[in-house]
Amino acid sequence: MRLEGVFLLLPCLVSLIYQDEEGLCFICVAAGAYLVGVLLSRFKPADFHFGLKEGCIATALSWILMSLVGCLPFFLTGEIPSFFDALFETVSGFTTTGASILSDVEVLSHTALFWRSFTHWIGGMGVLVFLLAVVPLSGGSGTNLMKAESPGPSVGKLVPKAGQTARLLYYIYIGMTIAEMLLLLIGRVPVFDAVTISLGTAGTGGFGVRNSSCAEYSVYAQWVIGIFMMLFGINFNMYYLILFRRFRKALSMEEVRTYFGLIIGSTVVIAITICHSAAQIFSSVTEAFFQVSSIITTTGYSTVDFDLWPQTARMILVCLMFTGACAGSTGGGIKVSRVVLLLKTVKKELIYYIHPKSIKKIHMDGKPIEHDVQRSTNVYFVTFFAIFVTSLFLISFEKTDLVTSFTAVTATMNNIGPGLSMVGPSQNYGFFSNFSKCVLMFDMLAGRLELFPLLILLHPAAWKEFLQKQTVIRKKRWHDIFKKIRSKPDDE
Amino acid sequence: MRLEGVFLLLPCLVSLIYQDEEGLCFICVAAGAYLVGVLLSRFKPADFHFGLKEGCIATALSWILMSLVGCLPFFLTGEIPSFFDALFETVSGFTTTGASILSDVEVLSHTALFWRSFTHWIGGMGVLVFLLAVVPLSGGSGTNLMKAESPGPSVGKLVPKAGQTARLLYYIYIGMTIAEMLLLLIGRVPVFDAVTISLGTAGTGGFGVRNSSCAEYSVYAQWVIGIFMMLFGINFNMYYLILFRRFRKALSMEEVRTYFGLIIGSTVVIAITICHSAAQIFSSVTEAFFQVSSIITTTGYSTVDFDLWPQTARMILVCLMFTGACAGSTGGGIKVSRVVLLLKTVKKELIYYIHPKSIKKIHMDGKPIEHDVQRSTNVYFVTFFAIFVTSLFLISFEKTDLVTSFTAVTATMNNIGPGLSMVGPSQNYGFFSNFSKCVLMFDMLAGRLELFPLLILLHPAAWKEFLQKQTVIRKKRWHDIFKKIRSKPDDE
Repeated sequence: MRLEGVFLLLPCLVSLIYQDEEGLCFICVAAGAYLVGVLLSRFKPADFHFGLKEGCIATALSWILMSLVGCLPFFLTGEIPSFFDALFETVSGFTTTGASILSDVEVLSHTALFWRSFTHWIGGMGVLVFLLAVVPLSGGSGTNLMKAESPGPSVGKLVPKAGQTARLLYYIYIGMTIAEMLLLLIGRVPVFDAVTISLGTAGTGGFGVRNSSCAEYSVYAQWVIGIFMMLFGINFNMYYLILFRRFRKALSMEEVRTYFGLIIGSTVVIAITICHSAAQIFSSVTEAFFQVSSIITTTGYSTVDFDLWPQTARMILVCLMFTGACAGSTGGGIKVSRVVLLLKTVKKELIYYIHPKSIKKIHMDGKPIEHDVQRSTNVYFVTFFAIFVTSLFLISFEKTDLVTSFTAVTATMNNIGPGLSMVGPSQNYGFFSNFSKCVLMFDMLAGRLELFPLLILLHPAAWKEFLQKQTVIRKKRWHDIFKKIRSKPDDE
Repeated sequence: MRLEGVFLLLPCLVSLIYQDEEGLCFICVAAGAYLVGVLLSRFKPADFHFGLKEGCIATALSWILMSLVGCLPFFLTGEIPSFFDALFETVSGFTTTGASILSDVEVLSHTALFWRSFTHWIGGMGVLVFLLAVVPLSGGSGTNLMKAESPGPSVGKLVPKAGQTARLLYYIYIGMTIAEMLLLLIGRVPVFDAVTISLGTAGTGGFGVRNSSCAEYSVYAQWVIGIFMMLFGINFNMYYLILFRRFRKALSMEEVRTYFGLIIGSTVVIAITICHSAAQIFSSVTEAFFQVSSIITTTGYSTVDFDLWPQTARMILVCLMFTGACAGSTGGGIKVSRVVLLLKTVKKELIYYIHPKSIKKIHMDGKPIEHDVQRSTNVYFVTFFAIFVTSLFLISFEKTDLVTSFTAVTATMNNIGPGLSMVGPSQNYGFFSNFSKCVLMFDMLAGRLELFPLLILLHPAAWKEFLQKQTVIRKKRWHDIFKKIRSKPDDE
């Protein structure tokens, strides 16, 4: 809360520059958030044990709390009149989804637009912390992190302390964001656009500041954005390795190779399907690359309405939505490394059918994958589809077509933003009922927090124990007070 | 081949009754098939080892060969002029899918119609043999069978010999088919319709003999068909248990309970969404039950065009398409027991997050599930989606909408038949290109044969070994001949 108070001051600064009146609201919320934060931090928990469960619940609740506070400025300034809409927009921001309920973003004040994009950046940073701090607690279950996932050198080996690792991570993150801003400014993109677009790219979010998303920018700017989206979707481990000059190891990372392979392959196929004459080759490649990079990293910017593309191109994009970016990045989705691992299990099973006696371990980057990691990856995949189907069912009460419901859930669970049909890049999520919006918000949070931390909140056992503990503590306190009262008369 | 020759004589009998000229073609093909079969059985393999790999390859190849021979009558009589269409129709028959390329089935001769429905029945019987003979060879990998899957009493314990078990299975299968025929005849359904519909229900196929599928039959007949579809989708283990009077165990089978729960739940929800007035209650329930029963058992008969139903109802049907029927039945799909097992793994993982130290085994029907079964179920699920996505991509070159491609692959891989939109119950698969038809045929076979037996055919390692073995044997023969030739001059 205190941090969010500080973060909220930045939009205030923007409002000063652009002389927006909305800044006042932001200052009030910022002050309020900070105060509440200070007050809350006075209460110390009775039990300091901080394990996997506590980490998950804390992360999930703080993400929800951040969103609840973060949506207040939108609501109080009246720029988004409905509370649910404001919350949807903020959840979409913090989870770096980029799904909007606004049909016209250009009427918003600069302050609000900046805050929208800034939530992406905060969310992206939060994900990196989450990956570093909470997920390793789950041991083998957290496939998607530095530790278990990218079986290169473990982070701890390169840099002695976790704190130092985190700092290095932030430097890379901030440095790349600034680099993109500068490159965009060189391309004569307006300052405000350059800043917000860069913030959105870094968090792989996707809120634009124009109704046309990125279509109005020059081809140079589009390539810059496209390349930086791709860079932010790479496993941050690779940047570590590059920083420590272990280039060969960095280049041999299986996940990153597959990731580049997917991008290049998809770009080529899509460019072919949308290209109709030799003169269009360059523009087709530009459009295809931008869109592929935007979708695979789950950013969600667009330069064209890809819902109008031919069937094959749209199908590839839908598949890429599920694949998602690399693990250990700010991108969402199932993650390339999980997909690679799952396909390797299939291959192993097939070989088992041919040579029933062969016992072969699955390798990745030359190292064997532990059984626990395989299991948790499989469970992740199953859980993903269980949530997916449930959400699909819950939002099917809307009077929309199947493609809309299907891609709406796909685009929110994978933290992308635009889907197809009625939630396509030229459309928005405003028409959904409040109930469906809640379902989609849940999906965004679930997708962002690797499913389980959010599911725990729904499991009664997690609460029961907490409440039991609280009752025990309270009973003890009452007991102590009782004792005191009792012992006093004795003293007399 | 010899068996198929015998089977082909049955349509000849039908043609005698209805005085169809097409019967001649069937006799020729039958005689040809039998002759080839006799000739082929003269060649004995050099190596008699029959393991998992050989079992899988033999099953896959014989399913393909059966279809290639079975489609000849359609093609030769000219009733289906295109060879690919005839093959598609036959593969769809033997795999008990029921996806047709015919827009008007009523112009076909009785003989051809009978053969179409009869292929379903043969296919269903083939599946039961396959489950009994080949899949157990894969050990823990074959989740979907009597042995590993339904952890009730193993089949072997009830009946001493495998041969006897198989015979009992056939008796149940044939008995139920005849029971349905009789009940339909009592309901004054025409004899030909009663016979073909019963054959199609038994194999959970779905080819009708009317353009309207089952819409023209009386409400009584629809209920009979609906209930029998449901019965053929139950794990055949339950019938064993009932035959051996172990009713309590039969009723406590977790899979069967979930299956009934799914049917009742879906019927109620769908009936509510399609019912508009109190007077419609009974007809809505009838329609909903028939359709739910038809889809969950992957049969594919229809009494209404469910593509016109509201979104929620269609969504439920699409979900049921994936769930499929019980393991150990003639139905297709992922199978209820697999879905139950997968959801249990998710629950277990969730509890792991809450109590990281708890070690809990997954139970089903009160017995712990072995780790190998869990793993293979997970791999099955992943493989299913891998094939699904690949097929989706391959048929996306067609100029169809996303719903059509999506449900076409769903309906073929799960051996259902009708999908939604352009492959809905009132439509057909005729418009697909030959290439797409091949992809869909592959999906039908893959879905029917539990994926891996068919995938093996595509893996070069399976062939390499076979060819190597053959070369060794041939070399040896030449070597022997050489020796003889050499030794002869020496003798002289």
